[in-house]
Amino acid sequence: MKKGERILSLTGAEALFADSGTMTRYVTGFAFDDGYIIVDKEGVRLYTDRRYLEAAQARFADAKIRVVEIDKQTSVESLLSAYKTVALPMEETRATRYISLQKAGVQMVDATSAFSFVAAIKTDDEIARIRKACEIAEESFLSLLPTIKEGQTEREIAATLEHFMRQKGADGTSFDTIVAFGNHAAVPHHETGDRRLRFGDEILIDFGCKVAGYCSDMTRTFLFGDDGTKEDFKKAYAAVLAAHEKVLKDGKAGMQAAEIDALARDYLCSAGYGAYFTHSLGHGIGLKIHEFPLVTKGKTDEIKDGMVFSDEPGVYVEGEYGIRIEDTVLVKDGRLQSLMTTKKDLIVL
Amino acid sequence: MKKGERILSLTGAEALFADSGTMTRYVTGFAFDDGYIIVDKEGVRLYTDRRYLEAAQARFADAKIRVVEIDKQTSVESLLSAYKTVALPMEETRATRYISLQKAGVQMVDATSAFSFVAAIKTDDEIARIRKACEIAEESFLSLLPTIKEGQTEREIAATLEHFMRQKGADGTSFDTIVAFGNHAAVPHHETGDRRLRFGDEILIDFGCKVAGYCSDMTRTFLFGDDGTKEDFKKAYAAVLAAHEKVLKDGKAGMQAAEIDALARDYLCSAGYGAYFTHSLGHGIGLKIHEFPLVTKGKTDEIKDGMVFSDEPGVYVEGEYGIRIEDTVLVKDGRLQSLMTTKKDLIVL
Repeated sequence: MKKGERILSLTGAEALFADSGTMTRYVTGFAFDDGYIIVDKEGVRLYTDRRYLEAAQARFADAKIRVVEIDKQTSVESLLSAYKTVALPMEETRATRYISLQKAGVQMVDATSAFSFVAAIKTDDEIARIRKACEIAEESFLSLLPTIKEGQTEREIAATLEHFMRQKGADGTSFDTIVAFGNHAAVPHHETGDRRLRFGDEILIDFGCKVAGYCSDMTRTFLFGDDGTKEDFKKAYAAVLAAHEKVLKDGKAGMQAAEIDALARDYLCSAGYGAYFTHSLGHGIGLKIHEFPLVTKGKTDEIKDGMVFSDEPGVYVEGEYGIRIEDTVLVKDGRLQSLMTTKKDLIVL
Repeated sequence: MKKGERILSLTGAEALFADSGTMTRYVTGFAFDDGYIIVDKEGVRLYTDRRYLEAAQARFADAKIRVVEIDKQTSVESLLSAYKTVALPMEETRATRYISLQKAGVQMVDATSAFSFVAAIKTDDEIARIRKACEIAEESFLSLLPTIKEGQTEREIAATLEHFMRQKGADGTSFDTIVAFGNHAAVPHHETGDRRLRFGDEILIDFGCKVAGYCSDMTRTFLFGDDGTKEDFKKAYAAVLAAHEKVLKDGKAGMQAAEIDALARDYLCSAGYGAYFTHSLGHGIGLKIHEFPLVTKGKTDEIKDGMVFSDEPGVYVEGEYGIRIEDTVLVKDGRLQSLMTTKKDLIVL
């Protein structure tokens, strides 16, 4: 069954509608700004305006998606009134749309969780795109290392890394690149700024890129010279790395998300860092950088073949240092497989 | 009156609420992912989680914004139930939020147009940011020109330009940079691709960057060598440039948006290009790259001092060429003032 039909069948509604955000792109494989999709028992129809019509028709010439030019006389409300119930991804539907459909008497249900659930299991084509995005991220990181110099700002290093990703074929970044020097790294969501790099600083870089819409996500932490005061840092680095590796080694399909999280969390607790691992182990990755499943405490969702998520344990000591090691990981043949290949021993530039 | 209070007063509601998108950033000047704002007769309260609390409190120590840590026990629904009516920017409110507030019996009105209306008139601080974003865009374009070489792809040139903007201090791009070679430029929304530059190609570049959240927008069209076949192109270029300049010269505060559009449109019509100018003259620019006012046919909105919008007439001949010349323009002391300074005579590299 095709993606749109699978989401529709999970919602139990007669039709599925989406007018923006990632669901239209997910169902059609096609990015367009002005338009919407309707999925019903006759299949997927993509309504788009004249600007995109030709490109869309060429693209779907032999696929099972019918491309229709938007008829300004026929409102979305009247099209959807023909169905008993319509499912919409409410998380990415604007309230304006909801209000106008409600006024038109359309019975609506939320397709958000059905969409998340279907999109969590990646197709081979999606995996190939994510793999390429991971490859570009990793190669760009390796190209970046020899360019790092004392006196550079966080912002400059982010710009260089992003430029490498674009040069190597990325469409853009998955999110705003985080570059944090020294104790800035102790803030998990540090905003990249104008601090200049000094000898002995640690550097944390959290970044990723997009290929044909699909994201990669990667974090590395390393030292810019060793000033002899980094014993605590190195001990913590070894613990984070061991926690990261334990997830890859012992994580399996069939486990609950919380059990995957616990592989890293329990390890860090027993090593004395429990209080310093202040966020989730990971999150699903696809068209969105944060998607289902969330890999964290309390989440009972089953980890399955075809899922892609981040393995990113961290240790943050306020005012001192922060360490995070992150790969994008694929569940394949029941096991976890990192999509990154470089070694993760502590780098000292 | 402060920004939040001005929007609230236009809506007529007792309180104003926003939980994402640009309105929280507009009202507080602060970008945050997890949190929301409530504005009522006592002023602006920013609710944020522990991660952002310290930064937010430091930032607003002497401002009139109260920072409150989100109390997980008190829902947004219960906070908002205290008011008779609450205004929300429905265009950027998720349907999930609307549904939960509706269930809680909160009476809601749409703040979208009040927000658009207030945000259209830029403060001096906002103008300074946009001016800087324009300066960076323009300098980056000038730095780019000597790097352009035969055989480069559209994507490579976009990457170089974006790198210059980052290096010169931009936070990121305003939108995906459009680089179009040859007849690709005839598609106003061309998707930058892998076509390689050849002698005699025209090049259209539509781009912009962000500084402290605020956007710039600029388009230039030029030739990569003159192969002697570009007479039609040059004639059309001169017409587009004259239309662009006519807007700057004759546009005034007090005119309607449609009258500004007509300055360029009437000129292009009389020059025989009426059918080839297939889009609006311009759009407001601020935190969003497309905002109120839309400068196009049928729009009666009054152009006022403090507005910033694009002046971007274009001529597109399918399969042959496309020309667009765009500046970001400020309305000041009753007149239109371009925020770009370089000459716009046709460049032949």
